[in-house]
Amino acid sequence: MDRPEIILAPGPTPIPPEVYLAQGSPLVYHRGPGFGRMLREVTDGLQRLYRTGSDVLIFTSSGTGGLESAIANCFSPGDPVLVPLAGYFAERFAKIARAYGLDVRTVDYEWGQAVKAADVAAALAKAPAKAVLLTQSETSTGVVHDIESIAQAAKDAGAMVVVDAVSSLGAVPFDFDGWGIDVAISGSQKALSASPGLAFAAISEAAWAAQAEATNPRFYFDWTSYKQSYGLKDPESPWTPAISVVQGLQAALRLYYQDGPEAAYARHRLLSRAIKEGIRALGLDLFGEDPERAWTVTAIRAPEGIDADRICATVRADDGIILAPGQGPLKGKVFRIGHLGYYDRLDMIRGLAAVELALDKLGYPVKRGAAVAAAEDVFASAE
Amino acid sequence: MDRPEIILAPGPTPIPPEVYLAQGSPLVYHRGPGFGRMLREVTDGLQRLYRTGSDVLIFTSSGTGGLESAIANCFSPGDPVLVPLAGYFAERFAKIARAYGLDVRTVDYEWGQAVKAADVAAALAKAPAKAVLLTQSETSTGVVHDIESIAQAAKDAGAMVVVDAVSSLGAVPFDFDGWGIDVAISGSQKALSASPGLAFAAISEAAWAAQAEATNPRFYFDWTSYKQSYGLKDPESPWTPAISVVQGLQAALRLYYQDGPEAAYARHRLLSRAIKEGIRALGLDLFGEDPERAWTVTAIRAPEGIDADRICATVRADDGIILAPGQGPLKGKVFRIGHLGYYDRLDMIRGLAAVELALDKLGYPVKRGAAVAAAEDVFASAE
Repeated sequence: MDRPEIILAPGPTPIPPEVYLAQGSPLVYHRGPGFGRMLREVTDGLQRLYRTGSDVLIFTSSGTGGLESAIANCFSPGDPVLVPLAGYFAERFAKIARAYGLDVRTVDYEWGQAVKAADVAAALAKAPAKAVLLTQSETSTGVVHDIESIAQAAKDAGAMVVVDAVSSLGAVPFDFDGWGIDVAISGSQKALSASPGLAFAAISEAAWAAQAEATNPRFYFDWTSYKQSYGLKDPESPWTPAISVVQGLQAALRLYYQDGPEAAYARHRLLSRAIKEGIRALGLDLFGEDPERAWTVTAIRAPEGIDADRICATVRADDGIILAPGQGPLKGKVFRIGHLGYYDRLDMIRGLAAVELALDKLGYPVKRGAAVAAAEDVFASAE
Repeated sequence: MDRPEIILAPGPTPIPPEVYLAQGSPLVYHRGPGFGRMLREVTDGLQRLYRTGSDVLIFTSSGTGGLESAIANCFSPGDPVLVPLAGYFAERFAKIARAYGLDVRTVDYEWGQAVKAADVAAALAKAPAKAVLLTQSETSTGVVHDIESIAQAAKDAGAMVVVDAVSSLGAVPFDFDGWGIDVAISGSQKALSASPGLAFAAISEAAWAAQAEATNPRFYFDWTSYKQSYGLKDPESPWTPAISVVQGLQAALRLYYQDGPEAAYARHRLLSRAIKEGIRALGLDLFGEDPERAWTVTAIRAPEGIDADRICATVRADDGIILAPGQGPLKGKVFRIGHLGYYDRLDMIRGLAAVELALDKLGYPVKRGAAVAAAEDVFASAE
């Protein structure tokens, strides 16, 4: 189990050799022109991905730390926020908000449903909120929520829009300025295929104004300190950052921009379709509303009588491939295949073959090669 | 300026090739037996360094994030804490405490003075505090404070003891259990010579009890989540950690334990003496009380009429060696040579030669080779 394993989970995602080399290369000292140039290049690349002219800050933390930065910087205890709950990561966002004393109201969905703008509008009409906390790609169910329409409903009701875009930015279109988003959080270890350790926050003018009033305590994640340090002649991080991970992220962004976001979105959509058709060809059901939108991760119902966790364990033990298990109420019922990041079509085919072999071993009637054939059909017809 | 530079600053410190290779190697997936074993090995190694049987938790953050975890987990707004202020990092600790609404009282020293147990005892006798916040190695002045005696004074007055050991753990003896410390924070990028990105907290039973009562908000740094995840069959981090930096830290600890802590302390002491004798041989004055205790970094007064920042800039421009400038009131007056981490004696000699050349260039009357000769004397007599 200590051999390098093949990650087909929704983060961390496979790391390209160029990124490994960069993060294993001599450290660029974090105060001075070399790091300043690197930080500027990385934040420029992220601004392009977010589609924003606003500030993008980089924290040494997981995506969860980035989400906490939004809650700590923009809100005060008692502030009402609305959280549409339709999966594990939306629930985490709500938990962070509660930890900071916010008055959390929810719109409750079955896990796997897509959040509807009309529901958010109705909830805000009944009780206004200072902000709506959204998740673009709900990694636990695969559902990619329609941020544009939901954000519009929130803006119409005068609420700020804070988005968890951790597992979507770079894989799915995002338009921070165009959609009027106030804060959007993402991370290094998802679609960009860098190593985990960095979170990002894009921050609108309105969010900065909210930050100036907000009383929740913060220091490590205090946006003001970052903004100040980014404004130096040689931009730097206020606290010593995970320099090696920044070096890897720089390499990852350079790779990403060799083809650019549009090519990345198309690739993610195509790989996602191939996985979905392959799974359907085995007679398994996809989980979640509108699976064609689920470009980053595919959630799959385990066949009747087979525990989904056993499928994951079998694939990992036999082939060293890591799938993601079901979370929360989906544990044992659902397994997930991640296809965001640095993948090509043969990675998908390899993963489907491993699933075929595991299902076969676990007693599910598999027509061998069926999933692979269906995926090949998708790839061939996309030529 | 983009060539690899030679770091002679107190963190990040030079990274051994084994560590670069480990952090540039395939990621170990963060949930499963491989990561579990790695996390266990790393926390075991840190427990030995702290000399504790208590929990040691690892956060993806800078040392500052680790300090914030102590404040957020152990205290509630209004809690009185005492902070002896004698440098930049003590002031940072006080700032974090104020950001979280603590009632911060201080014992004020000139920067460069050593904190005295008697002063802390007197302050606590006048006004009790829930905790005393200490800094073991005050990186801004080089002073290594006598944590053992100060902690005793705090314990005698019924106060908890929280220690910033970021730039000291591994370079200077620490005895968490023996000294009765409650929380001690350190980081990956100092004496252990791993890359920045990880902070550690050692946590006593009393600190856990305080945590259970404390109302300050926390989520990303909430110790309870870490403790729970460390207790799984395959220990893991509650949020996706900076896996590559953990891999590097594992390699760094293996190197560290090839000779062990006693050898590391002796090496740090010897390298420190060589730097100090070399600097004295140039006629420059050391900064700070009791410089012989300053094993991790040597603070040096710039000669009359020469700006200390110019010395740092000259050494960096001419030789690619990074010294640390003076901070706060010491800016321009003091420069600092770091000697904690993976250094050997020729690294010190190279650094002293660069300082000789820079001072010469800046018009200070240097007897060429004098600092190097004095350092060689130290090394030769230590054989």
